Amino acid sequence: MIRPVYSDGGRVFIIDQTLLPGRLEPIEINTVEEMREAMCNMRVRGAPALGLAGAFGVYLGVRNAAISDTAAFHLAVNAAAERLCGARPTAGNIFWAVGRMKEFASKYYFTNIKSAADALLNEAETLAQSESQASRSIGLYGADLLEFCRGILTHCNAGALAAPEYGTATAPLYVLRERGYRFDVYVDETRPLLQGARLTAWELAESGINVTLIADSMAGAVLRDGLVDAVIVGADRIVRNGDAANKVGTYALSVLAAAHKIPFYVAAPFSTVDFDMADGTMIPIEQRQPEELSVFAGVQTTHPNARIFNPAFDVTPAKNITAYITEYGVARSAEELKSLKDYGRLRG
Amino acid sequence: MIRPVYSDGGRVFIIDQTLLPGRLEPIEINTVEEMREAMCNMRVRGAPALGLAGAFGVYLGVRNAAISDTAAFHLAVNAAAERLCGARPTAGNIFWAVGRMKEFASKYYFTNIKSAADALLNEAETLAQSESQASRSIGLYGADLLEFCRGILTHCNAGALAAPEYGTATAPLYVLRERGYRFDVYVDETRPLLQGARLTAWELAESGINVTLIADSMAGAVLRDGLVDAVIVGADRIVRNGDAANKVGTYALSVLAAAHKIPFYVAAPFSTVDFDMADGTMIPIEQRQPEELSVFAGVQTTHPNARIFNPAFDVTPAKNITAYITEYGVARSAEELKSLKDYGRLRG
Repeated sequence: MIRPVYSDGGRVFIIDQTLLPGRLEPIEINTVEEMREAMCNMRVRGAPALGLAGAFGVYLGVRNAAISDTAAFHLAVNAAAERLCGARPTAGNIFWAVGRMKEFASKYYFTNIKSAADALLNEAETLAQSESQASRSIGLYGADLLEFCRGILTHCNAGALAAPEYGTATAPLYVLRERGYRFDVYVDETRPLLQGARLTAWELAESGINVTLIADSMAGAVLRDGLVDAVIVGADRIVRNGDAANKVGTYALSVLAAAHKIPFYVAAPFSTVDFDMADGTMIPIEQRQPEELSVFAGVQTTHPNARIFNPAFDVTPAKNITAYITEYGVARSAEELKSLKDYGRLRG
Repeated sequence: MIRPVYSDGGRVFIIDQTLLPGRLEPIEINTVEEMREAMCNMRVRGAPALGLAGAFGVYLGVRNAAISDTAAFHLAVNAAAERLCGARPTAGNIFWAVGRMKEFASKYYFTNIKSAADALLNEAETLAQSESQASRSIGLYGADLLEFCRGILTHCNAGALAAPEYGTATAPLYVLRERGYRFDVYVDETRPLLQGARLTAWELAESGINVTLIADSMAGAVLRDGLVDAVIVGADRIVRNGDAANKVGTYALSVLAAAHKIPFYVAAPFSTVDFDMADGTMIPIEQRQPEELSVFAGVQTTHPNARIFNPAFDVTPAKNITAYITEYGVARSAEELKSLKDYGRLRG
């Protein structure tokens, strides 16, 4: 199974997703700044994976620091946390995971740098393990929902590259595949960075699932032609009223699904759920560099005077979301999501 | 003003649109097969321009033939017509323009090859002139409709590169610009071949209009954010019940416009209107090569096992179309479109 971020003997690695589908290549990340660069430039991406990148990044910040007392330890943790949380503003998981690391550090009794780094590494690995289990659990709940689908459409990559080990939106697909079901997955290529074409189509095809790649603009025709029984996407942040931020284009897809009376599912672990925010209008939407749209493989694609609008995300209103598929079960509304969250907290 | 297809001293030229936005380069087309190749590979594209390519192509078929009698003349016309009509199946204008050339030829009294070729060239130029006037007229009618818009969204290229001299969907924009209005045009980049980015954004920016380029997937967010007061697109074929085929993605855009209560206009000359076809389900939809999606500037973008779905067009149902903007005026329904057509026929 793919792990987008992981540690091995105290060293931290990511799969450089910008090299896919050409090469599946882990690279070692040595410092907080290297991790931040990898996050900003989407070498590591996908909300849960970004969260883990943040967690392992905090560990690197302490591992590399010359620290001999408690004050310096907390300073190092906070400095790393600030740099990592600033890498990308939309994904709730970064704030969640880095927050967990800070909370752990705040309760940690500092004796020496080696023990402190080991403890933070252990905490980051625990978070990674917990996200893997969440992914599996989302797969099991989602597979029951999608059991009878012959065609399923997804957008961007909410796959194993985004959330170890089964992904979020893809987790039910992998579970259905394990159970021997056959179905077609339609994958939006997802401009401008083609995460659908480069990552989702790649990882699903690698695992033997039938994949059909389409341009984002073709989803309407595919839904209208009756080729799809359900749309399933991941999320970068889900807020209190049930609104969900995800890769730009998700909102349009939710409108199209509603117009064709096709269920629209958002699959995400609770690390993506941010109940401190009241509604989707409060979610900061990252604007990315114009060159992502105006240059392709070194070729200028438009007039130099054309202004470029390049938001990385958009917000899907709760009313367009049929259900949320989480590691604690399926929620049909923001209220049900709240109940599941409370249940999860009780369960530990 | 740009003319995508034109003749000069008996020679026929097109602007090779595959070279834009890098180079604006006319190339000479010498034979029917060269014209067919230019049409198939979208060196010349856009429904009205494709019609004219067909018309000039028929002329080339006769000009180059060794013909000495009437039978050979009709044979040459029909052979050229068949090759040209087979180049691209969706654009109604090809069948219309080539049909006009065949009709002209059927009434033409053949004496010698030189005169026959000249007569066909003259007929093709008449059609080109008529399309230019239609474009101007669409601009005048459309400008009145769009007078108060601050933001207008368009898809693909229905510009001067697609229909001499003002385009179809762009014609009202050029007229508004002449009248001194200021407004923003949002242009979908239009995957896979980026006609929006490469052609529409280029030609509008060249003429000093404010252009904002977006990925196709961002249109939903742009409409939701209230940045757009109207959507205007061209058409490749409009049929009897008012359904309209246009570049893939247009259908999704029409659903999004309806969901946001934003008017959705289709601008096209009557050469695009095919009342022999009852409804949109009958329009043949061209499927293009998978490589348009799976390879970009020589780089493989997806897994080799991923199936590719690459329809060039989709059909927007009449119910999603607020109005048709034609050279004879604005029609709010298929019935009004029929009335305008009858009026146009009377007017000659």
